[in-house]
Amino acid sequence: MDARDHLYALLLAGGKGTRFWPLSREDHPKQLLKLFSDNTLVEETYERILPLVPSERILIATSKGLAPRLRALFPDLPERNLIVEPVARNTAPCIAVAARRILTRDPKAIIAVLPSDHFVSDRQGFLDIMEAAATHAARGRVVTLGITPTHPETGYGYIRFGEFEADPDHPETKHRARMIQAFVEKPDHQTAVSYLKAGRYLWNSGIFIIRADTILEKVRAHLPGLADCVERLSNIDVGDDVDVDAIRACWTDMPDISIDYGVMEKAEGLVVIPSSFGWSDVGTWRALSAFPTDEAENFVYGKVVAVDSSESVLYCSHGLLATLGLRNMVVVVTRGAVLVCPADRTQDVKAVVEELKARNQTEYL
Amino acid sequence: MDARDHLYALLLAGGKGTRFWPLSREDHPKQLLKLFSDNTLVEETYERILPLVPSERILIATSKGLAPRLRALFPDLPERNLIVEPVARNTAPCIAVAARRILTRDPKAIIAVLPSDHFVSDRQGFLDIMEAAATHAARGRVVTLGITPTHPETGYGYIRFGEFEADPDHPETKHRARMIQAFVEKPDHQTAVSYLKAGRYLWNSGIFIIRADTILEKVRAHLPGLADCVERLSNIDVGDDVDVDAIRACWTDMPDISIDYGVMEKAEGLVVIPSSFGWSDVGTWRALSAFPTDEAENFVYGKVVAVDSSESVLYCSHGLLATLGLRNMVVVVTRGAVLVCPADRTQDVKAVVEELKARNQTEYL
Repeated sequence: MDARDHLYALLLAGGKGTRFWPLSREDHPKQLLKLFSDNTLVEETYERILPLVPSERILIATSKGLAPRLRALFPDLPERNLIVEPVARNTAPCIAVAARRILTRDPKAIIAVLPSDHFVSDRQGFLDIMEAAATHAARGRVVTLGITPTHPETGYGYIRFGEFEADPDHPETKHRARMIQAFVEKPDHQTAVSYLKAGRYLWNSGIFIIRADTILEKVRAHLPGLADCVERLSNIDVGDDVDVDAIRACWTDMPDISIDYGVMEKAEGLVVIPSSFGWSDVGTWRALSAFPTDEAENFVYGKVVAVDSSESVLYCSHGLLATLGLRNMVVVVTRGAVLVCPADRTQDVKAVVEELKARNQTEYL
Repeated sequence: MDARDHLYALLLAGGKGTRFWPLSREDHPKQLLKLFSDNTLVEETYERILPLVPSERILIATSKGLAPRLRALFPDLPERNLIVEPVARNTAPCIAVAARRILTRDPKAIIAVLPSDHFVSDRQGFLDIMEAAATHAARGRVVTLGITPTHPETGYGYIRFGEFEADPDHPETKHRARMIQAFVEKPDHQTAVSYLKAGRYLWNSGIFIIRADTILEKVRAHLPGLADCVERLSNIDVGDDVDVDAIRACWTDMPDISIDYGVMEKAEGLVVIPSSFGWSDVGTWRALSAFPTDEAENFVYGKVVAVDSSESVLYCSHGLLATLGLRNMVVVVTRGAVLVCPADRTQDVKAVVEELKARNQTEYL
């Protein structure tokens, strides 16, 4: 039987963050933004995996606050496919909870864990690699996707890889996995340049594919407290008489830890598939400039008149934006708030948000 | 009797123009903008002269289209103090018509002709010079105010002056007039630098003070056709049974010419008073940068959060504007339209307006 028949997708859609202020607000994080089309990033993530995973096997994990928004975006999503965290936790808990729930449905389930706020330009390339990854995962591997770097990016974590994985079943496949030697932190520029030269480093996409039973074994091994909470939670009746307090207590007891720190970086035998499908985590407004939409290398969204302007990110969700003589700038126009800064300052947008907090102008946060 | 007792003011408020787009629109020219305060520029002009000229002697000339707006701004303005051009003409006709109307009220009237869209920082200095100018004008002089240049501005016309005017009555006054040798066109940068060095050039402020009978004599001498039309117009009954068609016909017959070209540059014996009262014609958005409002030398209007931003014009009449890392930029946020450009490009705003016309997006014009 094909690995594909057991493939589930888990979209991680609980993130907060204001790096895309003023478009993102506290109640409106990045995965709910429309940056590239009339669809939000979480919808694009859903559509991207849909050719490989049928909708009944796509789950979405999110926070209590964002759950109503996601139910509205995906009205056909079965309630059992929505993992709602009643208290804010990092990624390890919701992934473990999802794995436990999926395992009940299919003991051979494989889960593709997908951040819901990334951009992918080559959808077919993405699907090809996901399918190959599922095959590796079916054999019990923890498979991550590592993006072949195109420039010395300092905003991403890296994965150093080693030899090809011994794979008797697929000696000649196009997407052979490599053994992971180490996860490395975001580098400074010089280090990033050396990584690019070395040729053995990939960007950590945060996408990984793993069998449900495998991830639960790893959680049991490295985060036994979490494993206990997950079991407790799975025993609470989730029928008509939901014990909300008991569910909340379970989540409250779970450790606030990411899957990367809590499991992946401690686990052994991890593999990575070097990938190139036009990926970006779209970490700041500037990241959009990698996806120009006009001849002057601007990223343009909405009603924009760009006269003699180039290499800029010009985003307008309300009214008209006119620019004249701009280069390497970011301009974001939303209903009620406008941001203007040079492209190389977008990582400091939080300074603006802090200033607004200091001035108690919370209506803009 | 004091010249001051016969002093009238004529505010020229008929101008069009979109140099302050997107704040100025076709139906919303510069004199109706609030750039420095909660008052429009025409209101500021009115308030500025009011300590010297009582309201019943302040007249406003404007176009048919803008008249309702001005009536709303000045609800107490007597209708006879509003000169409404039924067809668009330049400044010479409305000044001549106003002079004729004022002369009927006061044969000794002196008129201060004031563009209504300028900025003045030193109001008392302005009043002092206006009063001195009225004294000169009472003796039949055509008195212009020339601004002592502070930098080699290429956006203004200049006045080259000669000797002090022989003035037996005021040999020692502070504001002695100089004979005008020539009006000169807007110079290029190099020429402007040479003017600044020469020390005999002043910026043409467009403000002049003249006796009503004197200006009508000059119009008769240099624009006899206009003088005829003005007489015809003054003979039309402007009581209850206004002959709108006859009035319109009079205006239609008037030459479309400015007072500068039509009269001033041809007239003899003109004098100029060198003046320094913090004047600007506020010709473009950039001009506002000469009037910084914060320590970082930004001109700020409205709700603006300027982080690490300096020497910029940050105007926000709707919502919030946040800037980060800007220098020498202009950002204008209005309801429905936003403009961003480097400060040294604001003279090209018309290119944006042209582009909008080309795209037929007239709702923004």
